[in-house]
Amino acid sequence: MSQSVTKTEALPRRQITLDDLSDSVRAAQYAVRGELVIKAENYKNRLLAGDKSLPFDKLSFCNIGNPHELGQKPVTFFRQVIALAHYPDLMTNPITAAAFPPDAIARAQKYLGSMSSTGAYSHSKGIKVFRDEVAQFIKRRDGYEVDAENLFLTNGASSAVSLVLQMLIKNKGDAVLTPIPQYPLYSATLQLLQGELTGYYLDESNGWTLTVNELETRYNEAVAKGHNPKAITIINPGNPTGQCLKYDTIKDIVKWSEGKNLVILADEVYQENIYSTTPFVSFFKVANDIKSTVPIVSFHSASKGVVGECGARGGYGHWHNFPKEILDEAYKMSSISLCSNITGQMMMGLICNPPQEGEPSFAQYKAETQGQLESLQRRAKKLGEALNKLEGVSCQPIEGAMYAFPTVTLSAKAHEAAKAMGKTPDTMYALSLLDETGIVCVPGAGFKQVPGTLHYRTTILPSEEAMDGVIEKMNVFHQQFMDKYRD
Amino acid sequence: MSQSVTKTEALPRRQITLDDLSDSVRAAQYAVRGELVIKAENYKNRLLAGDKSLPFDKLSFCNIGNPHELGQKPVTFFRQVIALAHYPDLMTNPITAAAFPPDAIARAQKYLGSMSSTGAYSHSKGIKVFRDEVAQFIKRRDGYEVDAENLFLTNGASSAVSLVLQMLIKNKGDAVLTPIPQYPLYSATLQLLQGELTGYYLDESNGWTLTVNELETRYNEAVAKGHNPKAITIINPGNPTGQCLKYDTIKDIVKWSEGKNLVILADEVYQENIYSTTPFVSFFKVANDIKSTVPIVSFHSASKGVVGECGARGGYGHWHNFPKEILDEAYKMSSISLCSNITGQMMMGLICNPPQEGEPSFAQYKAETQGQLESLQRRAKKLGEALNKLEGVSCQPIEGAMYAFPTVTLSAKAHEAAKAMGKTPDTMYALSLLDETGIVCVPGAGFKQVPGTLHYRTTILPSEEAMDGVIEKMNVFHQQFMDKYRD
Repeated sequence: MSQSVTKTEALPRRQITLDDLSDSVRAAQYAVRGELVIKAENYKNRLLAGDKSLPFDKLSFCNIGNPHELGQKPVTFFRQVIALAHYPDLMTNPITAAAFPPDAIARAQKYLGSMSSTGAYSHSKGIKVFRDEVAQFIKRRDGYEVDAENLFLTNGASSAVSLVLQMLIKNKGDAVLTPIPQYPLYSATLQLLQGELTGYYLDESNGWTLTVNELETRYNEAVAKGHNPKAITIINPGNPTGQCLKYDTIKDIVKWSEGKNLVILADEVYQENIYSTTPFVSFFKVANDIKSTVPIVSFHSASKGVVGECGARGGYGHWHNFPKEILDEAYKMSSISLCSNITGQMMMGLICNPPQEGEPSFAQYKAETQGQLESLQRRAKKLGEALNKLEGVSCQPIEGAMYAFPTVTLSAKAHEAAKAMGKTPDTMYALSLLDETGIVCVPGAGFKQVPGTLHYRTTILPSEEAMDGVIEKMNVFHQQFMDKYRD
Repeated sequence: MSQSVTKTEALPRRQITLDDLSDSVRAAQYAVRGELVIKAENYKNRLLAGDKSLPFDKLSFCNIGNPHELGQKPVTFFRQVIALAHYPDLMTNPITAAAFPPDAIARAQKYLGSMSSTGAYSHSKGIKVFRDEVAQFIKRRDGYEVDAENLFLTNGASSAVSLVLQMLIKNKGDAVLTPIPQYPLYSATLQLLQGELTGYYLDESNGWTLTVNELETRYNEAVAKGHNPKAITIINPGNPTGQCLKYDTIKDIVKWSEGKNLVILADEVYQENIYSTTPFVSFFKVANDIKSTVPIVSFHSASKGVVGECGARGGYGHWHNFPKEILDEAYKMSSISLCSNITGQMMMGLICNPPQEGEPSFAQYKAETQGQLESLQRRAKKLGEALNKLEGVSCQPIEGAMYAFPTVTLSAKAHEAAKAMGKTPDTMYALSLLDETGIVCVPGAGFKQVPGTLHYRTTILPSEEAMDGVIEKMNVFHQQFMDKYRD
């Protein structure tokens, strides 16, 4: 080694610190898995280690839409096909093959005919056979043709959203209109990209409605600040708010966005989670109906719906009204991480192309999914009603998605106590709920909320057997909390 | 709607263009799946559609280390466990259970005992049972304890690498020392993050060796330019170069990096792909041996080794010598995309904890993996020898990884022809190879190379039956190409 090297070895080694890290990385917040969840994990580990000193004997993870974590069962047909595709010997061995319905075997064979193996990297947009299934699903749903070249299969919808935002944020001041409250993926990703989040408020008192007048106001405010709105995110059905947009509202948004040269990010991952009489309508359908040329990327996920296959990390982005050169850039970007995982791609294909009437697996599929949807409907209703009975709590009807986002009015004494703890009052409330009941929910601050208001997000996902217990625990906790901090 | 809205609707809609996109997105290059691969996909589609006009009847995708695409078979035990975990009914049904070896069933039961279902989001670092398997694997390999809290399971190694770079690039001028030639994930990610790539050259004439003197030279050049080197990437075994670092070289790099306050990114995804007598040694082991405090993130992948399960998208980053607050930031960042896919996590766990001697599946596992390694060794030797017989071509010994990266000397006439096409000469060579033989390889420019030199990367992955044919086609093509452009 040269002398200069020997010399540098003598320098004292400086420990790496937070100061060495990207400021935007440090600034990014992600409440759904933040402080509260870390505390909950510690409790879980204590319980696993036999600790009997806690006032609860299990955790209820209501912080995240993770149905299987709370005991939901998978759809049999989907798992059969996935098992067969990963281990095709199950089909060649007649003894094991006989344990599978013929349509599961046919489907696995079809899939394997379109790839070398589940072990190969695929096309960076995803394997064509799955993109074709997604394209046909959208056509059946909306009545319009979809080119499979406009579909990008991704590791969950999250990475599809990140890709679009990463491509669109170009200059300082570039902004994305984002609902308040919102799903924190949007705020976190914009922080990382140093883009501006232009919040528009959903009107809680009117069932979290969205009006174009509100969009116009916030758009103009952003422009007056020197920001440059490039896109608008719409979450329909709403997360965390659960509202479902009506056809005419979507039409207004499409027209307005077109006039403003905005790209629409249509987060439609809860499109199957509908519990009211307002049917789901996609931005793609409305844009086609009115022949709009507004660019839309709509997102869907294998993690939601009535299937809730979160662990598969399947999702897609459907790019509509984009010129080819922009799709080529999206393809290049996708290729840097090679491809999304094949199990996730397969799950997304299966969800879009489930067993049809007349096929051997249809009855079981129908029973499993319809039962699940009806159960979610019952739980949404039950939880909403129970929350509305709590002192100082008000919860809008849960029309869709997987969450309740009630507003809570706390006393001046509670506000002071929170301030003394260095927490926001909703964070103090959620931490106390965790400490006393083991129920994990997320303070409203993580989703953003009208300044001065307090909310928390909890899921409708505890099983029907568990739901009454969760509600009862919340009820008892809430009353004690209100009494403790009564002015 | 308000009047102002009606007014904006009247504005002419401007089509979104490339000018609307992030400059760094547009600038990013990713050659492994670039122009050549798009052309190859078009050829593949033409062949599938029955086109007989091409001078070849199949494509040989040697552009990427994707073994299953070229016919490699999976390891039976791994696929058995994955099928059982996704579809546990196979275990409860005694008829299907009897078709599995008891250790596969025991393993699947162990895994399912540590999660609610493969359908649930996991801890953002990955399920503990798999992280424990990885930790034990590293301990067996290196003799040092690993805390599972320092392990992050990811969708392939790519996303582990991106995470580290995203965290470290803070200010304009922040730089990462990167080998030339390199795997283009590094150059593409640095372009996206607007970080500087400080290239250090591997010495081709000495089997692509790396010297600390070269690092020191390039480090000083970077500092003189006002850049701030924060990290160094080492790829061992080398990609695309295939060399294996010796213990003492690693020791020198660790000491030198420590003296420079650099973070080491140890890309060790090819650690099982060793074909020479130089054993793989990890940076983690050497750093521990010499009690270095240099921060290291080492990367491993389910996609490489002798298993090549690319479609699973399994991988990990192992963070060593980082303070807790930095791991917490990495955890927060991981949580924004919730978790990596469970099939990939499981595959990474299985690879780290394969059947052991005395277990029912050991003999088959051993036969499958040893056969594969020996076959790769034979193919590396055969391809390297064949390339060295070509006029104007020189290929260093392929000691490890999955690639050959020969240098090609082309005539002045060939250089002129390439210039006339608007291509670099190596790109023209690779495009011609594709057009005439259907063999897809990647021009050296995509990996960076010493200015004025020309290379291409091709894989050693065609099956042993196919390898002779690929070599023969390359041989015939090369001779014709050289004759065509003879000065």
